[in-house]
Amino acid sequence: MSEAPHLTFNLDTPGVSTGHLVVPKGVDCEALSLSVFSCNRGEGPGLLITGGNHGNELQGPILARRLVQWLPEAQGCGRIIIVPEINPLAVQAWTRNTPIDGKNLNRVFPGRSDGSVSERIADAISRRLLPMVDYVLDVHSFGPTWDCAPSIITHPIADVDQMAKTVRISEAFKLPVTLLWEHNDTVGMFDTTVHSQGKTFICTEFGGGAVGAEALTLYEAGLRNGLIALGLVGGEAEYPTFRQQKFGQTLETTSSDQLKSPSPGIFEPRCSVMDEVKEGDVIGVLHPMDSLSTDSTDIRAQSKSIVFAIRSAMYVQGNDEVAILARPLVH
Amino acid sequence: MSEAPHLTFNLDTPGVSTGHLVVPKGVDCEALSLSVFSCNRGEGPGLLITGGNHGNELQGPILARRLVQWLPEAQGCGRIIIVPEINPLAVQAWTRNTPIDGKNLNRVFPGRSDGSVSERIADAISRRLLPMVDYVLDVHSFGPTWDCAPSIITHPIADVDQMAKTVRISEAFKLPVTLLWEHNDTVGMFDTTVHSQGKTFICTEFGGGAVGAEALTLYEAGLRNGLIALGLVGGEAEYPTFRQQKFGQTLETTSSDQLKSPSPGIFEPRCSVMDEVKEGDVIGVLHPMDSLSTDSTDIRAQSKSIVFAIRSAMYVQGNDEVAILARPLVH
Repeated sequence: MSEAPHLTFNLDTPGVSTGHLVVPKGVDCEALSLSVFSCNRGEGPGLLITGGNHGNELQGPILARRLVQWLPEAQGCGRIIIVPEINPLAVQAWTRNTPIDGKNLNRVFPGRSDGSVSERIADAISRRLLPMVDYVLDVHSFGPTWDCAPSIITHPIADVDQMAKTVRISEAFKLPVTLLWEHNDTVGMFDTTVHSQGKTFICTEFGGGAVGAEALTLYEAGLRNGLIALGLVGGEAEYPTFRQQKFGQTLETTSSDQLKSPSPGIFEPRCSVMDEVKEGDVIGVLHPMDSLSTDSTDIRAQSKSIVFAIRSAMYVQGNDEVAILARPLVH
Repeated sequence: MSEAPHLTFNLDTPGVSTGHLVVPKGVDCEALSLSVFSCNRGEGPGLLITGGNHGNELQGPILARRLVQWLPEAQGCGRIIIVPEINPLAVQAWTRNTPIDGKNLNRVFPGRSDGSVSERIADAISRRLLPMVDYVLDVHSFGPTWDCAPSIITHPIADVDQMAKTVRISEAFKLPVTLLWEHNDTVGMFDTTVHSQGKTFICTEFGGGAVGAEALTLYEAGLRNGLIALGLVGGEAEYPTFRQQKFGQTLETTSSDQLKSPSPGIFEPRCSVMDEVKEGDVIGVLHPMDSLSTDSTDIRAQSKSIVFAIRSAMYVQGNDEVAILARPLVH
């Protein structure tokens, strides 16, 4: 019988403590030790913050470590648990999926104790950490081949009250975009497991591309706003500046807002995140590589929209997503 | 005996023509056909523009295609040959090196007709295109895991006149930085082969990270300035705006300006390209992943410098480059 996932320290210890969440070994690799920070200030909400779910989105691990620096001073009540890298194997390989089993950690929740390493990580988090908290904040970005607006994203939730609560808390992060994303591929997502336990899931999507110092400052301000809204730290929330503007919008996107490449070729972005576009505007151009006498193809907006995310210039296959547009959410 | 590299059309045809440069098949793969554009306006300088030398730097292929759109109208004299993707195999794979032979195309010049595919590409370019021109403009960026200042880079050239000419032409692109980079790893570079034929080599390094629409506009303005300076197109050159500033600086960097990670961990950038830093300023932080009770390490500037390039947040090994600083060149 295999070892059970366990913590090397007691999360109920008052104040600040650090240790590890041990993910047991399996047939595919040895046991993993995930670094864990805990700040327990007694009564109040419980929050789990996770980074490094996808290993090429390093905004999460870095922001987690920034919070570890100032939370011991700032946190006034409740419980915050932070795991900067829930998928250290993918972080070290700079890959979206776990290199050992090729799986997307964010599609195998709640995991399996006798599964492959991604499933064992999900199982350890689901069983050892989730029961301790009321909220989960999972810090993602769009990955290195996209640019996207700093945002909190939520997928539709069947429970109307849970949905309203999630949107309300998401907006309190005061990021440029709060996005309701209609998405069919939610089986095995961390979100789904958290919701099934009646808890609130908050997912950031922070920028994509290369991760730079200026963007990290903006994202950190968003996280601080969220912690203020949850009552865990004091202070005044305010909109960080993004593209010379200080405000937030709540948007929605559906499958028809996702623009795809018509054929293989090099995608050239022709607009930027948060651009307002109207029907027929060119979002990007697809350049065939085989001949300069073959015309390039314009990829156009189908309706008045806001550019939420756009693919970096790169070679894409036919039917690959190249842009995600969005429209104001009608509450 | 293998087929020789050849063009499918005559570069001496007056006016605009397009066709292919055929790289013969070898034991590792079939023949490649590289798309080629030619605009021949008679007397005047000859320029070869190449993109896609490294397959995850798509600024080159896209800017090449933009030039193809407006050069037929704008070019007043001389000869311009454009190959948007000199390494289509790497572009399609979004890799720095050629996937079939694992080689860096920019380290195998002048190539070999009986070599692996990267060497055959280099051979075809060196033998069929280089003899037709006086200048080569090879469009690079720093790759997706870096941010760097839009720049023209040159390595030291033994011939003093050639060096002075190269710096003068580079500065005429009016990009934010013209950089003299002392570099020991120049064997097999495209630069070296071009110099050995007594010709002038100009290498851009455009930004890195995700490739967005706003940055492409800036880079295109730089290329237009360069074509004006070479006398190939008309108009007035002017500095494009970068970080709210319109000016250029000529800098130099040596091996001691390259900051490296002290140990494995997650690199957090703490400054941005073009930041001015002084001795002791924190450029970035290295976070060990194994424990939150182990301190992170500050990586500091050794002297007063300007940040030329900085690595994106990612997991790095010990001794990996994380930032490249530079100082004003004393002419």
